[in-house]
Amino acid sequence: MKKNDAITPREVDMAKWYSEICLKAELMDYSKVKGFIIYRPYGYAIWEQIKNYLDHQFKLTGHENVYMPLLIPQSLLQKEADHISGFAPECAVVTKGGEKDLKEPLYVRPTSETLFCDHFHDILNSYRDLPIKYNQWCSVVRWEKTTRPFLRGSEFLWQEGHTLHRTSAEAREETLRMLNIYNKMGEELLAIPFITGKKTDKEKFAGAEETYTIEALMPDGQALQSGTSHYFGNSFAAHYDIHYLDDDNTLKVPYQTSWGVSTRLIGSIIMEHGDDNGLVLPPYVAPIQVVIIPIRPELNGEINKRAKYLYDKLVEKGVRVKIDNSPSSPGWKYAQYEMKGVPIRIDIGPKDVEKNSVLLVRRFDSSREIYSFDDSLVDKIISEFETINKGMYDKANRYLHSHIVEVHSKEELKDVLTNNKGYAKMMWCGCRECEDKIKEEFNATARCMPFNQEGFDDVCPICGKKASKVVLFARAY
Amino acid sequence: MKKNDAITPREVDMAKWYSEICLKAELMDYSKVKGFIIYRPYGYAIWEQIKNYLDHQFKLTGHENVYMPLLIPQSLLQKEADHISGFAPECAVVTKGGEKDLKEPLYVRPTSETLFCDHFHDILNSYRDLPIKYNQWCSVVRWEKTTRPFLRGSEFLWQEGHTLHRTSAEAREETLRMLNIYNKMGEELLAIPFITGKKTDKEKFAGAEETYTIEALMPDGQALQSGTSHYFGNSFAAHYDIHYLDDDNTLKVPYQTSWGVSTRLIGSIIMEHGDDNGLVLPPYVAPIQVVIIPIRPELNGEINKRAKYLYDKLVEKGVRVKIDNSPSSPGWKYAQYEMKGVPIRIDIGPKDVEKNSVLLVRRFDSSREIYSFDDSLVDKIISEFETINKGMYDKANRYLHSHIVEVHSKEELKDVLTNNKGYAKMMWCGCRECEDKIKEEFNATARCMPFNQEGFDDVCPICGKKASKVVLFARAY
Repeated sequence: MKKNDAITPREVDMAKWYSEICLKAELMDYSKVKGFIIYRPYGYAIWEQIKNYLDHQFKLTGHENVYMPLLIPQSLLQKEADHISGFAPECAVVTKGGEKDLKEPLYVRPTSETLFCDHFHDILNSYRDLPIKYNQWCSVVRWEKTTRPFLRGSEFLWQEGHTLHRTSAEAREETLRMLNIYNKMGEELLAIPFITGKKTDKEKFAGAEETYTIEALMPDGQALQSGTSHYFGNSFAAHYDIHYLDDDNTLKVPYQTSWGVSTRLIGSIIMEHGDDNGLVLPPYVAPIQVVIIPIRPELNGEINKRAKYLYDKLVEKGVRVKIDNSPSSPGWKYAQYEMKGVPIRIDIGPKDVEKNSVLLVRRFDSSREIYSFDDSLVDKIISEFETINKGMYDKANRYLHSHIVEVHSKEELKDVLTNNKGYAKMMWCGCRECEDKIKEEFNATARCMPFNQEGFDDVCPICGKKASKVVLFARAY
Repeated sequence: MKKNDAITPREVDMAKWYSEICLKAELMDYSKVKGFIIYRPYGYAIWEQIKNYLDHQFKLTGHENVYMPLLIPQSLLQKEADHISGFAPECAVVTKGGEKDLKEPLYVRPTSETLFCDHFHDILNSYRDLPIKYNQWCSVVRWEKTTRPFLRGSEFLWQEGHTLHRTSAEAREETLRMLNIYNKMGEELLAIPFITGKKTDKEKFAGAEETYTIEALMPDGQALQSGTSHYFGNSFAAHYDIHYLDDDNTLKVPYQTSWGVSTRLIGSIIMEHGDDNGLVLPPYVAPIQVVIIPIRPELNGEINKRAKYLYDKLVEKGVRVKIDNSPSSPGWKYAQYEMKGVPIRIDIGPKDVEKNSVLLVRRFDSSREIYSFDDSLVDKIISEFETINKGMYDKANRYLHSHIVEVHSKEELKDVLTNNKGYAKMMWCGCRECEDKIKEEFNATARCMPFNQEGFDDVCPICGKKASKVVLFARAY
């Protein structure tokens, strides 16, 4: 299978394999400041596909985009105690502006709850203004000690939704609606199956009442939190003095949500699908969906003509397609587009012209198929997208479900967590001490309490007390 | 004409009129940090239209989007002397990260030339890599003393293009190609005629060899620089050690450009087209192109049915349309959508149903027309967009060209500049001293040397020396 000597095999060193793909597929480069990466055109184009997909979904569900300032005054960040203690330690702080020392330090936004809250305080008046459903596309800064491209950066790109509702029920519904949009994106766009569920109190967002998550499982058995959706109740609203006049003429405090996904999703895609030849992209998120390679076009004038004809027809149908006419050898090109994870390669050579056919090679399973060069070709290529996306999703889903192991004792828990077996599904007492112990002994965390809470044991294997919750524990990125 | 008592008339106080439109049309709000504004949904949606238009044009002309880090190390910013002296005084500086003092201060990007140069140094190898044509959508920070929403902010949204070319001729061509795209956007999207031309050395970008500009003329006779395109030659490339191996096997330094427009364009639109009833938006940039107002729908069930039918038909054709079914009075709604500058209002009331017609009211000239409610209605509405856009452009263009005044003496120059007469078109000697004098005495600057350099005088009216250039002087935002 392995054809590209240039990268370290995943089995040998997954971290190295990952970094090499990031660089060699030209997704990113490092900048002079630790943890701040350069999103190169190919990496950024993946993010643009994710943005387009989500922005469309957000607008369909009645959300509007806004843009809040980059800098947050210290006094504003401090209003919600949990929030400041959660975020302040990882902030970058501006202390000088226009060559003068500032009176008050300004924090580069690590997230924008406080800014949205302050704005909501100013603009919300009547129950008629509700719901307010905003989203923002921006970058945020968190001063991380250990950084890895896309997975954990001191700066990353993301979207953050912020909404206000009249009732708690409506806000809870919004929280789950957005989680479902993320989950659907996993299936439709990224070919990644997520485990969805609720975070434990220890793991929830600083200041949230409830946090829901989409968790992906990587090939090394580690979980990757890929997006979250928070129900805030009205604690932020109370701290930031947000209220409205209800139709019964009394002042009320609205209920709030926030939710976000980031360029970390690019990290999920790389690890979930990549192989020893490089990146493997699902078709709907791929910046280049089809690459056409004319083979020895100098031998037959028909070759380039057919390549161009097919290219035009695919463009007409909205397919993201490229012809590579460069002087490099076919072998070099194959390796190149494999590294870049282009889902479909189409070769047209002298023999193909003779036989009135083309060769189609799928990236994800290396399967090859000969298609007639006729009127049905374009539709056949397009129908491959669905087949490939489903094939990739199903493969990842089989892996995921074979790596959720019910554990009934501490020994079984240890086995799953220390031998890369994925999620340990455990009945948990609900107390923080047991979570802390698991973290300390096995370096693993409660990833989520899945929506399906069908129990299977009576006691928590850590403390022996009555178990009340089904929890998935795993090591995580 | 004036129906909305809520805002200050433009003639009375243009600055106040402007700020009131910004707030009352809900384009923006102020944040707690001076010069940092909140882009509210309606303002941000205008920016999204501009983004969509330009992003499409950039991609059609072979540009790729990237994202560079937010923070620039001081040492990197310092490599180009003109550049650092131009930008450092207006930078925000991060000195703390993760609760520790940083060893080297990090500047929040005021623009990203230095980051692009550093990256180009790393990725450029061979002549085969050229041209490299990148663009970035982001926000930048410049610590401004006097700020006004959209026109001059400490933070603003923009795009910055950065390209590298093998030859000087190709880079110059790129510089003008992008200027032309901006100019075409003025005509097609913003209904704003720009004066295009070259900046004098005094006015050019810090570090550029040549700067080209699009300048709009506001109703108070002041110019508004609305976008620039720079030819860098290879000075940046030399300072940042960017080179490539050419096909003759020698190392060469490439030629560079950069170009950008910002949310300042929203300011141009407000001032260029707005009136005493509020914002007036050209149809192609308007977030809501058509608003349908059912009048007394309780009187005839057909009214809401027709409104919904028309709405659906317009949505089908991709028109951005809204029905306002709220309980507010028609008069209140009219004032509301006038304030928001919605280009076309359609009223459907009981009499319209009787006569099988609708009333169409254009925002920009208040003209009213009765149209049959038949199969041709949708196409007629859509064809209004072009008529309105052209009408708005032509009006602005007549104003512009009646406010370019040839001056032959210092007295004439003074008259134009101090009496809000627009551009003083003057023959200039080419020396910096005369520019400084005009700045000092009349608070005006050389806006540009227009492409048409047909001369009309022999001497510079300031110093009496031989004149060599046609220059447009004006006061400017």
